This record gives sequence, C-alpha cells and structure tokens, in this order.
Amino acid sequence: MKELEKYVTSIPDFPEPGIIFRDITSIVGNADGLKLAVDGLQAAVEDVDFDIIAGAEARGFIFGMPLAYNMHKPFIPVRKKGKLPRATICEEYALEYGTAEIEIHKDDIKPGQKVVLIDDLLATGGTLKAAANLIERAGAEVVKIIVIIELAGLNGRAVLEGYDVESLICYEGK
Amino acid sequence: MKELEKYVTSIPDFPEPGIIFRDITSIVGNADGLKLAVDGLQAAVEDVDFDIIAGAEARGFIFGMPLAYNMHKPFIPVRKKGKLPRATICEEYALEYGTAEIEIHKDDIKPGQKVVLIDDLLATGGTLKAAANLIERAGAEVVKIIVIIELAGLNGRAVLEGYDVESLICYEGK
Repeated sequence: MKELEKYVTSIPDFPEPGIIFRDITSIVGNADGLKLAVDGLQAAVEDVDFDIIAGAEARGFIFGMPLAYNMHKPFIPVRKKGKLPRATICEEYALEYGTAEIEIHKDDIKPGQKVVLIDDLLATGGTLKAAANLIERAGAEVVKIIVIIELAGLNGRAVLEGYDVESLICYEGK
Repeated sequence: MKELEKYVTSIPDFPEPGIIFRDITSIVGNADGLKLAVDGLQAAVEDVDFDIIAGAEARGFIFGMPLAYNMHKPFIPVRKKGKLPRATICEEYALEYGTAEIEIHKDDIKPGQKVVLIDDLLATGGTLKAAANLIERAGAEVVKIIVIIELAGLNGRAVLEGYDVESLICYEGK
C-alpha cells in the first residue's frame, strides 16, 4: 500500500546506530493514515473465516482492536509476562540479548477456534512466532498473520514458515 | 452501564492481597462486550468538540483506537519512557512505590488542539493526571477524560479536579 507508506516516519539510528526505525505512530497520528491502515487490515481478512483477533502488546493492540470492533470479533491481548490477572499460558522466546516471555489467558481461546494474529511489525519474527505458539498450545489455529510493516531483510517469513503472512507495507532492508 | 458490567471479571487478591482486580480483558474478549464498551465511549464524546484521541499504554490503546477510527480522529499514544522514537516531552509521576515516566511525541499534539483522553481504569488518577499534564505542556487542552472503569473508593476524581471525567462503570470500593 503505497498510499499508507507515506504516513510512516523513518528514523535513522533508533534505537541504535545502523537501524532505521519505522515509526507507525505517525500513521495513527493522522486520521486518514489510521483509517487506511485499519481498512487495509480489514481487506486482508475479507475472505478469511475466523473467530478471534489476537494482538501482541502494545502496538498489536493499536491495530487489532479497531479491526475486532469492525468485524464484531473478540480481541485477545497477548501480553508481556505478569500483566494478565487470570491463569495464563506463557511462552519464552529469544531476543537479540536475552529472552522475553509473553502470555495469554488460558481460557480466552478455545480449542478449534480460528485466530487472526495482528502486529505492527514483522522483523525477525520472534514475537509473532511465540504468539502463534501460544495460540496453538491453546488448541486453536492461526489462520492468518497480518502486520502493518514487514522488514524483508530480517527474513521473519522464514521463522513463520507455514503461516499465511500478509504485510501492508514491505521494506526490502532491515 | 449495567449491561457492560457483566463482562468485567473481578479477581480477588490480584496483584496483591486485599485488592480486587477489575479485568477488562473479558470485556474485549467478547465481541458484544467489546462493542458495548466502544459504543459507550462513543456516546460519551457525542457532544464533545475535539481534535484528537489520546490513550495511555497499554490498555488505553485498546479502547482509544477503535474510538479514533469510528470518529475519524488521530490517535496519540501516551507511552512509557523510551518507547517513542522521535523527540518527546516526558512527565514523571508517583507510584505507590517509586516513580514512573510517560511521554508523548513533541510534535504529535499542536497548541490549541482539543484532546479526549482515554484509559481503561481510573484508580488513584496518577497516570491520567500525568497524561493530562503532558497534553497541556504541549499547549493543548484536555476537553474530556473517559475511562471504562472507575474505582470511586480511591478518589482519583480529586486528583483530576477541574476536568470533565466520565466512567462507563463505577465501583464504590477500591
């Protein structure tokens, strides 16, 4: 979506030298950009049969919720460890330095349900793979993964092999 | 909104003994609950003249974004320190133990703009007051604060004196 791309702010050397940070806050900070992004997600699920939208903390909440509202589906937050008050299932995954843990409420997703997973960014794919693992451990199926921005140079699609992955904007680099 | 209240899960002794945690994930984890909440927010801004929706990380994103989409307004995330890539203004505020810092992008809100501030919960009012301070330091005006749940026993309204505050659900206790 070339039209959406113009709302992205590219910030060189953030959070560290050599990285170009693709800032989605300037998409949602503009009413037209926000609408383009959400409508783009909606177009991506048009022919998908699904029960639930899941989104990863915190920017997955930003894009997952309006989609859930528009499609009249439940929204399930995938949160960093320790934020959810009821019984959870938890998944650890590797970061560049160290590890992180994310979790979902154990009873939020039922076996056999079809889940669309939303995030702002596909970079290395680590967070999305961990979120997909959680959903599958709940007995459900990830029928589609949709992100606003894909950094193709980081090859996150290899980590997500076997999933139906769609990005609204794809940058060749990292 | 009595109808919305039935989607709230109340969890005793979380995150510590004596606290009843009011869980909003069970609102959005149900398509009808999610719709009731967002439509309730929308009813609360029906007669409000405003330019921007702002929401505090992370649950303010959950409720602010669908409202922004529906009203065709920009959404400005109020984030924990260090998450926003462009130049920010930052506000420190007191927690029960220690302090926290939240920030907004400096150029996201323009002087004179009218902002509706959204969060899931009004407890002591500390986060919402800090967010309101940020918005005012940007030269803008907080025309309304809307939360899903208010814990009246914590008297957050006193901290937010002078603001137009509305909650969709109000619990008497803490």
